[in-house]
Amino acid sequence: MTREAADLIDESVKTETPEDLEDLALRDDYALNPAYVEMVIDAADAGDGARLRELLGALHPADVADLMGFLTADYREQVIPNLDPTALAEIISELEDNLREEVLDAVPSATLAKALEELDSDDAADVVDDLDKRKRAQVLAAMPEGDRAAIETALAYDDETAGRLMQREVLAAPQFWTVGQTIDHVQATTEDLPELFFEVYVVDPAFKPVGAAPVSALLRSHRDTPLSDIMEPVNEITVDQDQEEVAYIFDKYHLISAPVVDDAGRLVGQITVDDIVGVITEESEEDILALAGVSDAGRDASVWGIARSRLPWLIVNTLTAALAASVINAFQAEIAKLVTLAVLMPVVASLGGNAGTQTLAVAVRALASRELNAANATRIVMREMSVGVLNGLTLAIIMTGAVFLWLGDVRLCITLALALLINLFVASVAGILVPLTLDRLGRDPAVSSSVFVTFVTDFMGFLSFLGLAALILL
Amino acid sequence: MTREAADLIDESVKTETPEDLEDLALRDDYALNPAYVEMVIDAADAGDGARLRELLGALHPADVADLMGFLTADYREQVIPNLDPTALAEIISELEDNLREEVLDAVPSATLAKALEELDSDDAADVVDDLDKRKRAQVLAAMPEGDRAAIETALAYDDETAGRLMQREVLAAPQFWTVGQTIDHVQATTEDLPELFFEVYVVDPAFKPVGAAPVSALLRSHRDTPLSDIMEPVNEITVDQDQEEVAYIFDKYHLISAPVVDDAGRLVGQITVDDIVGVITEESEEDILALAGVSDAGRDASVWGIARSRLPWLIVNTLTAALAASVINAFQAEIAKLVTLAVLMPVVASLGGNAGTQTLAVAVRALASRELNAANATRIVMREMSVGVLNGLTLAIIMTGAVFLWLGDVRLCITLALALLINLFVASVAGILVPLTLDRLGRDPAVSSSVFVTFVTDFMGFLSFLGLAALILL
Repeated sequence: MTREAADLIDESVKTETPEDLEDLALRDDYALNPAYVEMVIDAADAGDGARLRELLGALHPADVADLMGFLTADYREQVIPNLDPTALAEIISELEDNLREEVLDAVPSATLAKALEELDSDDAADVVDDLDKRKRAQVLAAMPEGDRAAIETALAYDDETAGRLMQREVLAAPQFWTVGQTIDHVQATTEDLPELFFEVYVVDPAFKPVGAAPVSALLRSHRDTPLSDIMEPVNEITVDQDQEEVAYIFDKYHLISAPVVDDAGRLVGQITVDDIVGVITEESEEDILALAGVSDAGRDASVWGIARSRLPWLIVNTLTAALAASVINAFQAEIAKLVTLAVLMPVVASLGGNAGTQTLAVAVRALASRELNAANATRIVMREMSVGVLNGLTLAIIMTGAVFLWLGDVRLCITLALALLINLFVASVAGILVPLTLDRLGRDPAVSSSVFVTFVTDFMGFLSFLGLAALILL
Repeated sequence: MTREAADLIDESVKTETPEDLEDLALRDDYALNPAYVEMVIDAADAGDGARLRELLGALHPADVADLMGFLTADYREQVIPNLDPTALAEIISELEDNLREEVLDAVPSATLAKALEELDSDDAADVVDDLDKRKRAQVLAAMPEGDRAAIETALAYDDETAGRLMQREVLAAPQFWTVGQTIDHVQATTEDLPELFFEVYVVDPAFKPVGAAPVSALLRSHRDTPLSDIMEPVNEITVDQDQEEVAYIFDKYHLISAPVVDDAGRLVGQITVDDIVGVITEESEEDILALAGVSDAGRDASVWGIARSRLPWLIVNTLTAALAASVINAFQAEIAKLVTLAVLMPVVASLGGNAGTQTLAVAVRALASRELNAANATRIVMREMSVGVLNGLTLAIIMTGAVFLWLGDVRLCITLALALLINLFVASVAGILVPLTLDRLGRDPAVSSSVFVTFVTDFMGFLSFLGLAALILL
């Protein structure tokens, strides 16, 4: 136990109220306090269930989920039976995938079914999706008819679509209603309304959305005001839209919630922005990892699991590196004549790789934010090429200056300068065209583009420098 | 003009209603239709102001802002005077920075002052912040006292803090009020309330938030219900908190809005999730670009501007590449004896670079989501080292197998295997320790770590392989 943890516990023993524990739990930046994790571990080591429940009870469900990620499997096993049953559903829905499976395995089906009833249908479906076949059947069987149907409907939609993200619970009202009628309806209905709602969707007789009014506008308006007076046009989402697209629409139009319609245009649910925040975080994390050629194995993954998750791209890289090396192999005679070539060739390759990666990252970002599309693709490609030439010239001047001072060999300097210019140009072309092509083919431009761009700049770096050396120098 | 654009225009001329134009404006994925951009360009070429206003009027302000990014400066100059004055404020607040400055220059101060009154104080402050000194004074002078004060207060907070993000307009109510009293207050007050609100903040006599009730709960409850019955605890944000931290709190606790308090704990404003979505997108874009060693110069930047924005890291890379090359230089004698060393050394460096980048990306993501901190840092570092050794072994087996088949030289294979093992281990150590150290020092772990990790793996790749070759092979 750290000194800090010991101090905190000493202090907490003196004053020990739930509020004190809450204060201890989080650091100033709202991240879980490492000392608090130590306190949980100490309670588990002491086998003190009451203390564990107290420590866990002082945390928000999201922080309990976070805590689980900081514990090893042995400690989690001790913590799980001490989780607050009333917070269980929320804790589960906050857990990372692999930890979630562990908790789901440990909790009896009946408890789980009861817990899930507390959640909105989208979150409940999300949890049920992670159950194994047998347990899923048990849990669904133990749930009330309506909740079961909602979950089964949600699961019928593809993963990462609007249908999966949406909750079926929604506040809808016919066009001819007044504000007063709508409020009366809300007060009379309790069952099928979402836990939180931000808009009432105004629908026509076919249940197609014709507008929406923010709840704050309801509150502001007189009871006699017709909904059609305060409603505004809506951005409809269709059930099969990709979640990334939905996130783009929310971001672009600053939406708080949006109605989801089926193929016939009928209102079937709503998506709220809090789910979208999760999607945006997830998608951007995926891009960062994809650009580095890695998928996240999860905080709790084993060494084997992580190693395996990273190996595929390393093996692809072995092949591309071998191909690039074959270029060097073809110029063995030249290198034997002038070993300095072997000293300088990695510099040409490396600068090309860096410039290509820069262009690639900018292009991936611009594609994700729809700032790059057919309307300006040609202009952007031309601009990147010009940037490649310009920076190629700058680096050529810097490098040849340094090499001239070092070796005083003019022809070597010319070779190097031309190779740098060629490779920086190739880097910018590859850096922009590879993601554009992947995007045009409907593929994620972040996935696999970086290994390809680096291969191109390595290959061309070695080829241009050694090839030019053979022509000019030797 | 493309064939597609021509078809669209033909069609639009036949049917031409604002609704038709709206349908034409966006593609299925809600991105601006390139053909629509062509239509705007054609109208500008024809000098047809009426047509321009019609085309612009059919677009949401966010799409007008997007359109501006797809036009060249000449066309923007023609478009700006035709922007709808009532939508002007919103369009400006949606524009990217460099385009915004251009529009702000072109619009008279009086028009601007009038337009800004429409915006919530956070968005208005954001726009005023981009004005040059002289124009800022003019615009502020032309605004009503209250709006001016709100903007000046907002601008007194540092950029990227909660104080900047928040809007001063907020719905607050004393603890002893009922739901009915609150609703009556909303209907009586119109001036100082935000355009949209999602929660009422319950405050004590010192104006400190003691809880919050969602607007949907107000709607659901009976008029006589005391606010204290339906309110829930709040996550307070302080004015000087960093926006990234605020985004983390919103994401973690799925907040829709949160009260902002000053140093004395008094309610001074609120932050809503729609502003946070923008922050999350921005911060993750910054991470992607920072990892690639580049800053975004903007969609409309010139070739010179972009080239300059990329040059600093390329020059740093020139220096690190030169340092790595100096290792090769020290082993010229060995390479001259066995040129195969020059063929294989980039493979060792490249595989290390890739493995290091993988570890780095995972670490940067885990740090951003607070999944990696002092509570588990040691465990994660140990795990990464094990992964490095494991994948080092795997790659060593693959590579030496291939090289043995190619050259049949056992000692070269041993050299290569050991060098790969060392470099993959070094890669994992650098990949995890560099971002952890930067984070511990309070620096952004995404900035500059990647160039450093690649340098380490290049340097150690060359050193281990050539050094071992000198020892074992020659």
